[in-house]
Order: sequence, then structure tokens, then C-alpha cells
Amino acid sequence: MGRATDRRGVLRIDLDAAADGRERIRRQDTLAVEEPLEIRVGPAGPGRRRPLAVTMRTPGDDLDLAIGFLLTEGLIRSTDDVRTAQLCAGAETPNTYNVVDVVLAPGVPEPVTDPARNFYTTSSCGVCGKASIDSVRTRSQFAVREDPLAVTAELLAALPDRLRAAQRAFDRTGGLHAAGLFTADGDLVVLREDVGRHNAVDKVVGWAVRERRLPLAGHVLLVSGRASFELTQKAWMAGVPLLAAVSAPSTLAADLAEEAGMTLVGFLRGGTMNVYTGAQRVPAVPVTAGTPRVPG
Amino acid sequence: MGRATDRRGVLRIDLDAAADGRERIRRQDTLAVEEPLEIRVGPAGPGRRRPLAVTMRTPGDDLDLAIGFLLTEGLIRSTDDVRTAQLCAGAETPNTYNVVDVVLAPGVPEPVTDPARNFYTTSSCGVCGKASIDSVRTRSQFAVREDPLAVTAELLAALPDRLRAAQRAFDRTGGLHAAGLFTADGDLVVLREDVGRHNAVDKVVGWAVRERRLPLAGHVLLVSGRASFELTQKAWMAGVPLLAAVSAPSTLAADLAEEAGMTLVGFLRGGTMNVYTGAQRVPAVPVTAGTPRVPG
Repeated sequence: MGRATDRRGVLRIDLDAAADGRERIRRQDTLAVEEPLEIRVGPAGPGRRRPLAVTMRTPGDDLDLAIGFLLTEGLIRSTDDVRTAQLCAGAETPNTYNVVDVVLAPGVPEPVTDPARNFYTTSSCGVCGKASIDSVRTRSQFAVREDPLAVTAELLAALPDRLRAAQRAFDRTGGLHAAGLFTADGDLVVLREDVGRHNAVDKVVGWAVRERRLPLAGHVLLVSGRASFELTQKAWMAGVPLLAAVSAPSTLAADLAEEAGMTLVGFLRGGTMNVYTGAQRVPAVPVTAGTPRVPG
Repeated sequence: MGRATDRRGVLRIDLDAAADGRERIRRQDTLAVEEPLEIRVGPAGPGRRRPLAVTMRTPGDDLDLAIGFLLTEGLIRSTDDVRTAQLCAGAETPNTYNVVDVVLAPGVPEPVTDPARNFYTTSSCGVCGKASIDSVRTRSQFAVREDPLAVTAELLAALPDRLRAAQRAFDRTGGLHAAGLFTADGDLVVLREDVGRHNAVDKVVGWAVRERRLPLAGHVLLVSGRASFELTQKAWMAGVPLLAAVSAPSTLAADLAEEAGMTLVGFLRGGTMNVYTGAQRVPAVPVTAGTPRVPG
């Protein structure tokens, strides 16, 4: 249902190749597909499903994206809160299946959509779609502060290469963000990619929701880009004790991780990393592989 | 009013430095500041200003950010549509000045905030805050197709270094996106940075709105990251004929640029680039410096 990449004609210019006359070449280039996905939510029964959010995403794992979004927005707490979720025909021709229709289980409150109030309605990035500062914060049902996860710096340093190796088979565009969930032993559990980094994380979380793996205690979530407030909040909502980013975190990401008792690692590249919070989970003394996982 | 960077304590781990005993060092690290900005909009007169959007942004140029956002969302057409815009106290203590209050000029329609309808209310990224696919598209008041801008590939190839040189003085965090507006001669007109790349573009556009420089005919907009649908749409809304990105575009960015008659350049790095659309503006034959600018 939808391709992750597509091809477009391009004029490739290489100034260094001017000497051999191959400076300007017309060729096909592979691009990451970006298409809107509309998430509609409504109650069980004959009630109408209303548009809740549109996100620009790379098609694929759309149901996971929708369910992960609902979970990280605090609108559902588990897969039991979802009665059905299905890809639907949109109004477009040809049909692009760019709508996910979610029916909530009986008793699950509908999202508040009054923009004058605290409303979630319209965010695909966890934050930016919200109309007031009060509505930015969600509350995690999971305590990660006591999570006894401990990993070596060596193990963390190996993860970006594993993510890229798994990603390389898929991404030939240079345009996709990746999010990978790893065990405490460094095994890749699931990898998702998207033009939107928030979507990549929501796809991972949505998969975990469906697999009833929440909270993701004892796991490491690695993202290919930067660590923002939103990504940190999404990780906390899923019960992840350690969020690692290949690039820089923001102040608010570090502050939220501190508040959550989460470990935040940034600039994880080569043999170096910065541990901004929760450094006890990256101890100097060797840790035993397979540190016991803790219940949520 | 707000700092762009701040410092946090960090545990720096460098596995390659293990031999000399400097593997783990506690130090201060400079991070990009990320804070919410609430944009409130209301009519002239005693009418109440309502929260329209929250964006996670790097403080600074907040009025430009708000005005640029309103312009690229199609809610205002020029600075004449804004009666006043001011930074206000939020509800927080200490006061963080994280609210911009915009009073529209008489006769300017208020944003539609009914989520059941086509509403803009809640987007900080131009797209992701919208609740239905119909509301994703905005209409530019500027035709860029006929813009006769022509630049050499050599000139384009020089821009990323100019952007970085200007950025380097400011960004010591590795966490800020940059957007730079250049003339057809390659002169940097304005540079803005932000944790959110959409915000960086909105800050540039908002500056141009206030300076009455729209449409940005004959200009080049360079962004430090990828080119998404949203960024392409924002460039079109501001009348920019050439959008260049250091990294990859998405399919929808290329498709929208094609529809707009805009030139889209991606992977602009070193001496190479891909011209996805509008290649006539990067001709193989030398162009005269100072190609005449065209009225909107």
C-alpha cells in the first residue's frame, strides 16, 4: 500500500566533472515519497469519525503510524483502546489510501477538538499542531526513572552502524529519517523510516502497541537525527528508558529527559557520545550483558 | 528576549581516548534552546485573541516567526493585514515571553478554527497541524513560473559555504537549522536559524513581509536540511523562484515545485547538485551577473 521511494527526472550537475564533458547529465533519481495521511477518530457505534490530524508521511506501516500517534498523544493507552483501525479510500483519484479510520473501543473518550480548549486535534509532530502551550505536555502512564537498564558505551557506539546497515537496504534516497528499537543486548527489534522523524518514532511505537510490548522497559530507542522535545516525549509515553540520537538534542529535550528520569544520549557517532541525563545507565564499569528487564 | 543557546552539564564519552584515561569527562555543553511559542490571533477592536498555533522554536525573531507563519499559511497577504504584533507575557513564571499576540487589520478575516472544517488553526509546520487533507494546500498570491531568475551552477555551489560561514558565528550547538535568502548575485540578504527548519523559513519570510520585500522575485532561498512539501509551499507563498536544499527533497516537494514553476535544487554540496525542476534557471551557458529582477 504505497511505495517508500519513487523516481523523478533530474539534471545532475557536477562541476568537478567539467573537464571530461560530463558536467551536466539528465538521469533518474530516487526520492523518498511524501504523502499526506489523514487520521480520523471516532467512537464505537454509528458515530461519525472526525479528522483528527494530517501528517506528511512516507507510505507504509500507516496503521502503526496512526496507533503510535494516538498513544504518544495520550489518546489511547493500549491496543485495547482501539476497536478497529483501517486504511480507507480518500477522496482522491486515483485512490491513494491516505486515510486511516480509527474506531475507539467503548468507553474511550473521544479526542477534544475544541480549539479554544486544550486540544490535541491537529498535531502530527506531537507538539506543533497544538494551539496553546498548556496542551503541549502529555502525561506518560509509565515511570521510566526506576528502569535498571544498563548498557556499555561500547554497545551504544555500535548501534548507529547497525541502524544504518538495516536502513541501507531500504533507503536509497538520503531523505528518510530512521528510528530503531534495540534490546539491552544491542539487538535491533524493529526499524522504521519516514520523511518525518516523528512519524518514524510513531511507527515504532505503534508497532509496539499492537504487539503489546509497552512499556518498552529495558530498551534503547535510536533516532537518526536530532532529539527534540517531541521525540523525547514520545519515547517517555512509550516507556523507553534510553533515547539516543545521532545528532544534537535541544535544551527542552534534555530538560524533559531529566524530569522523566530518562537517559538522553546525543551526538552518538564514531566512538563518542554525550550523555545529557541519566548517566547511571551508561556506567564506567562493565555491565553484564542481558541486564534483567524490569516490569513497567 | 530569549537566548538561542544554553548550557547543560554532560558526560562526554570518547572510547578512542580510553588509552590516556580521558575516556569520560564531565563538562558543559552548549545546546540549541527549544521553547514553545504560542501564536494568538484576533480581530481589531475588543475581540478576543484566540490561540492559533504553538510551535517549538528557538527564541529570537519571534514576531517575524509569527508574521511569516501567518503569511505562509495564507492568513495574511502583507504587513498591511497586521495591525499590531507583540510579544506578551505567558502564564509561566518566570515570564518567558512565549506568546505572540497578533491583531489583524480591519477587514482581514479571522482564521477558521472549526476543526470539522478546513482549518489552519494548529500548524507550525505548514502542514502537519491540519486535520484534513483538503486543508493542506494553500494558494500563493504570487506567480513564480515566469520569474526570469538565472544563476550559474558555480554561484549556487558557493552558497552553502556562505550560509555556514554566517551561521558558524552563531550556532555552536550543531542543533540549529538555517535558512538563508540570497540575491541573484549570491549575496546573503538575511539568515535565520531555529531548532525547527520550518520556523527558520518562517522567520526569513516574516522579515521579508515586514520589510515589504514580497514577492521575493529574483531570490534564492537556501535551507540547511531537506526540502519537504511544507518548505516548498512556504517558498512559493513568499514568491521565491528557486529553493535550494543541502540535502534531499521529497517526491511531493518536487511535484509541488513543478506545479508552481519553481526551481528546486537538492543535494547542493561540494561542487555537485541535483536540479529537480525548473532547470532553465540554472543554464549551461554563462549568465550575466545581475540578471534583471522581475516584478511580482
